[in-house]
Amino acid sequence: MQNKLAKLLRPTAVAIVGASPREGSVAGSILTNLQACGFAGDIYAVNPKYESVLGFRCYSSIDRLPENTDLAILAINRGLVLQAVEACGKRSIRNLVIITAGFKEAGAEGERLEQDLRELIEKYELNVVGPNCMGIIHRSEGVKLNASFSRWFLSGGGIGFISQSGSLGETLLESFEEMGLGVSTFINLGNRAGLTENDFLRLLSTDPQCRAIFLYLESFADPTEFRRILRTINGEKPVVVLKAGRTDAGAAAVASHTGSLASPDAIVDAFLRQCGALRVTTIEEALGALRVLQKGVLPAGNRAVILTNAGGAGIIAADACERLGIDVPVLSDEVQRCLREFLPPEAGYGNPVDMIATAGSADYERALAVTLPAVDVAIVIFRPPMVYNESVVNVADGILRVLEKMPDKPVLVCTLSRSEMVTPLVSRLQEEWVPSYVMPETAVSAIDVLCRVKALEAQSVEDTKANTHDLDRARGILDRAIGEGRTGLYFSEGAEILSAYGLTICPFAYLESLEEGKRFLSQAKGPIVLKLDSPELFHRFEVNAVIVDIETEDELATAYSQLCQTIDSLQMPDARVLAQKMLVGRELIIGLEREPLFGPAVMFGIGGTLVEALRDVAFGVAPISRVEAETMIRSIRAFPLLKAFRGQAAVDLDALIDTITSLSQMAADCPTITELDLNPVIATAEGTYAVDILFRIDPSKAQ
Amino acid sequence: MQNKLAKLLRPTAVAIVGASPREGSVAGSILTNLQACGFAGDIYAVNPKYESVLGFRCYSSIDRLPENTDLAILAINRGLVLQAVEACGKRSIRNLVIITAGFKEAGAEGERLEQDLRELIEKYELNVVGPNCMGIIHRSEGVKLNASFSRWFLSGGGIGFISQSGSLGETLLESFEEMGLGVSTFINLGNRAGLTENDFLRLLSTDPQCRAIFLYLESFADPTEFRRILRTINGEKPVVVLKAGRTDAGAAAVASHTGSLASPDAIVDAFLRQCGALRVTTIEEALGALRVLQKGVLPAGNRAVILTNAGGAGIIAADACERLGIDVPVLSDEVQRCLREFLPPEAGYGNPVDMIATAGSADYERALAVTLPAVDVAIVIFRPPMVYNESVVNVADGILRVLEKMPDKPVLVCTLSRSEMVTPLVSRLQEEWVPSYVMPETAVSAIDVLCRVKALEAQSVEDTKANTHDLDRARGILDRAIGEGRTGLYFSEGAEILSAYGLTICPFAYLESLEEGKRFLSQAKGPIVLKLDSPELFHRFEVNAVIVDIETEDELATAYSQLCQTIDSLQMPDARVLAQKMLVGRELIIGLEREPLFGPAVMFGIGGTLVEALRDVAFGVAPISRVEAETMIRSIRAFPLLKAFRGQAAVDLDALIDTITSLSQMAADCPTITELDLNPVIATAEGTYAVDILFRIDPSKAQ
Repeated sequence: MQNKLAKLLRPTAVAIVGASPREGSVAGSILTNLQACGFAGDIYAVNPKYESVLGFRCYSSIDRLPENTDLAILAINRGLVLQAVEACGKRSIRNLVIITAGFKEAGAEGERLEQDLRELIEKYELNVVGPNCMGIIHRSEGVKLNASFSRWFLSGGGIGFISQSGSLGETLLESFEEMGLGVSTFINLGNRAGLTENDFLRLLSTDPQCRAIFLYLESFADPTEFRRILRTINGEKPVVVLKAGRTDAGAAAVASHTGSLASPDAIVDAFLRQCGALRVTTIEEALGALRVLQKGVLPAGNRAVILTNAGGAGIIAADACERLGIDVPVLSDEVQRCLREFLPPEAGYGNPVDMIATAGSADYERALAVTLPAVDVAIVIFRPPMVYNESVVNVADGILRVLEKMPDKPVLVCTLSRSEMVTPLVSRLQEEWVPSYVMPETAVSAIDVLCRVKALEAQSVEDTKANTHDLDRARGILDRAIGEGRTGLYFSEGAEILSAYGLTICPFAYLESLEEGKRFLSQAKGPIVLKLDSPELFHRFEVNAVIVDIETEDELATAYSQLCQTIDSLQMPDARVLAQKMLVGRELIIGLEREPLFGPAVMFGIGGTLVEALRDVAFGVAPISRVEAETMIRSIRAFPLLKAFRGQAAVDLDALIDTITSLSQMAADCPTITELDLNPVIATAEGTYAVDILFRIDPSKAQ
Repeated sequence: MQNKLAKLLRPTAVAIVGASPREGSVAGSILTNLQACGFAGDIYAVNPKYESVLGFRCYSSIDRLPENTDLAILAINRGLVLQAVEACGKRSIRNLVIITAGFKEAGAEGERLEQDLRELIEKYELNVVGPNCMGIIHRSEGVKLNASFSRWFLSGGGIGFISQSGSLGETLLESFEEMGLGVSTFINLGNRAGLTENDFLRLLSTDPQCRAIFLYLESFADPTEFRRILRTINGEKPVVVLKAGRTDAGAAAVASHTGSLASPDAIVDAFLRQCGALRVTTIEEALGALRVLQKGVLPAGNRAVILTNAGGAGIIAADACERLGIDVPVLSDEVQRCLREFLPPEAGYGNPVDMIATAGSADYERALAVTLPAVDVAIVIFRPPMVYNESVVNVADGILRVLEKMPDKPVLVCTLSRSEMVTPLVSRLQEEWVPSYVMPETAVSAIDVLCRVKALEAQSVEDTKANTHDLDRARGILDRAIGEGRTGLYFSEGAEILSAYGLTICPFAYLESLEEGKRFLSQAKGPIVLKLDSPELFHRFEVNAVIVDIETEDELATAYSQLCQTIDSLQMPDARVLAQKMLVGRELIIGLEREPLFGPAVMFGIGGTLVEALRDVAFGVAPISRVEAETMIRSIRAFPLLKAFRGQAAVDLDALIDTITSLSQMAADCPTITELDLNPVIATAEGTYAVDILFRIDPSKAQ
């Protein structure tokens, strides 16, 4: 695949189809950009109206282009695009960038045109970027290519940037440049009739120049493929994703903007986390993340030291650390003793280390050398005070000397200024890719990014424990139910399927008589529950088909007769009375749903009314690894409740992880299961028990 | 007070005590700054070593200064400060800025010096800024005063800026200038031995030039006074507070930095909200807030329209709105019809309105004129597309024309660029104080600021409903308990005090015998609770002194005898058995604590284990108005549970508000009450009932 796209980014000869000398024409801008960027290959124009355009030989048609043409940029009338693509295909010009708009994003007629375009792409095996895009830019050793109408050309560097949006792409290129962030590849995907983010991810994953990948996406072309590729990248280079249309309001805009369907955002969050990609929510956050990730050093933990010559800024940094869960530990007596050897007595020796305004570059170097071994990461705040007789570059040099000895610890610098007085310091640091920031909170956010990327990498370990399951048994039950034309299952059937996947079910029995109930009650040695069961009954609670807390035979008799009456009134003659033991433990809710784009997703939350009100749930997209399941469980706000709490022992986390991973496996194995609610599940210190089970099945999904 | 400080900011003659021609000396810098800023009054130096300094007449001592000297800047050795202050006092030089450090912030010796300084300040009725500060800067009609060693002089404008930190103050002045934010007054408070933020707040509150006030604080000099002053400012001009040391880590740094005590942060949050001040957490947030508040127009509601010529940016803006709870309503058919009259069919007509790249200034003007009446605020995203033949200033002019007709609606502009191509647009908007931003998320944050300030203003309405209470009755009970040397109260005593403040208590009775219990049970017509009561018993649950869910006489008998045994085993012969009806409703926790700096604070939360794990509680500092109490209640995440939920009716919010305001009143009236726990309180649709009551009282606090 890399070879397949190699010529797209490193063409021998580029033809601009639709080039014209007209002031302000898009094709003209592309031609000008291509020339101005220093492209070393041949440049041709195609336009029947001219003999030459802006000094370049102009051909009357694609057919007449020289043999060496291997990239065509189409910036022509919408009506001429298909014809031009066909001409390229016949001439074996395989690489195309279609700038022209008016396709999928522009109503039914455009949608039809795009469908035809897709067929041509397939027929001629073309590599097509667009339509409706700004173009592509690439700069690496020996290559300078600005095949776009963007004002910004790349300064070169370690970032590969794939953007679904053109204007936003340009905004970001501008910001990258301002921040001194080097981009080597910029791709504006446009409508993705041919190439998608996945093709370019594959390309960038093996590009040694690319140290970090940034994607701006409004939708995923193929999430399964995306995840497969990301799995190969994870740990090699960070992938930062700004996925827009995260909210309902945003999603509405996406739909009208690119005609793509946005996916419910919680699933996207889970999906990207499982892919090992860092999801950012704002442009500023994206820029900050890329800045710090370029250097490629991740901290081993989250313990930070803050060195400062300005007390207030140190406090603000410490505040920001606390908010983001970054530890600012008090320094040991030994470290403090070392600091006291050269810092004045008025200095602050806790953490932040307030070295006060008199601190010079030698103090910074010594303080960093002394404190860095005790932590995982350092924030160095240095703003030249009013009286400062040294060159500010000395401070940078001192930091760099320490980093030479401790290259595996990230150090972030904060200057509290953007002015000229700090420029030499910032530039010197930038040479070695040490990031510097104006405001302390921004530096702290960058540490948070490093910690999150570290955590994402840790997540990519392979599962060592495999789930065992009996797929035939599960399929057998489902096939029978489908054969009967049902959309639901009996509790016992559901329990058997879950058992086949290793889940534990709360003890239950069907009662054929009150006597059987009495036996169940006496064996239960504690309160029991009676409920009605029928494959047509999806909401037991709403029809009062559940009676809890039955402790005595009297209560049992009342409940039993009440449920028998309900069977009559509901006119569900096949409904049966089910008895279950009431278990003591933490009440959870675990569910399964199928999302059109991402496929089956498992939902996890703590049960009860509060959680319902707070929407404190986590999702995982199947397949879910054990590490991912654990991340899900730990990500809910109410997680502390699952630890030892108020005299209850901690729940069996391992069993809970098993439950989630097994359900994810089951969902993948059995496409006819469209929904599943386990509500509640009771988690105890010795296992996790499914208490209520509601399957929905769809015969049309049978394979 | 304004008169008292008038001369400090508008002096006739300034003396720099300690001035020297030495390169890089602080006093020399101040002298240079004062001269360079264009100060119109007389400038004198004081230093026995020189006859003149940098061309200014140098006096050998303060005594010899000319008669008209009315401001002295002290930048001398710490050991000489007190003597100089005394000299100023004797010479009736009432206004002093003490730059010198080494006081409270520098250990015991400095602390003593500062105490002596305070005595001199009082003795001579001096207006002293500092010690340990960078100085003051002021610029308004006819005045240019840079009495500081800051590199930055003010460009003049509408912001009054009070900073406890010097270096951070300078950083912010630099950022203000970069952002085109005009500052008219900058005060670096330093150690606040004399003047505090409160003095300057009072000054700025009546300064017509000051349109918004910004404070950077690490601690409050006098919160009660602060609140009193803010009350007079609220609604007149916004006050933005960056309070650092918000977290434990930050607080530790504050303590070593300025020797001030930091307060628990949740209380600070509540306190500032009650003061009507906008609390910001980061420097960037502060800058963004001030930028948008300068214009002084607040939106009537939170409905926003987004106009854009770049689809992706529109989506990002819509996403950010959704995250911050800003409504982006779909536009009405009528409005969409008006837009279709001039926008192309490919445009997006929902909201965001995607006017696509071809939109010119006339389109922007018409679209804004058509949509703004339908919403409260607009975000206009305009980045000049590649092909754009107009001047970008036209877009600004169009927006300004619409604003002339609708001056009460804020419009925020977003350029997606910092480059020269948008500079003329940004400058034109800035002339009319229309804020512009690079990134859409930043513009949306600014709208959030406007909405929050609007909400804070709305909060300042006066209470129309007064609480009635019987202070004498409450005091009588407390006095008796204190007379007996107790630190706790009987349940019945607590209930009586709460009743005196209008609270409703869950029905209860002391049981002298099991027979009495049986009568209580039969009258209760539902389950009851038995618990032990003693003024020495502060944690009933921990000693199993509460038995719930008693429904039958058997259960009652068991519970009663169990509690009688507990009385024996606890060796609490004065403990009594208390019976209470079990109420059905939402379980709340309401408490009272006294914070050393802010005084009594009421805590409110929803009871149960989940809330304990999630720490989902709200605070209010007494006195608490009804509006403030309602804000508290609504601010917890679990608030939806108090509305109609799962078949339960909404709780009686009015009764809940009464409870909180009455407790706040009680805390203010009765200083001997040091703590109170009402856990649980049961809130129903018809009132709020205190179920468990635990008072702690402290005789030493008796007045």
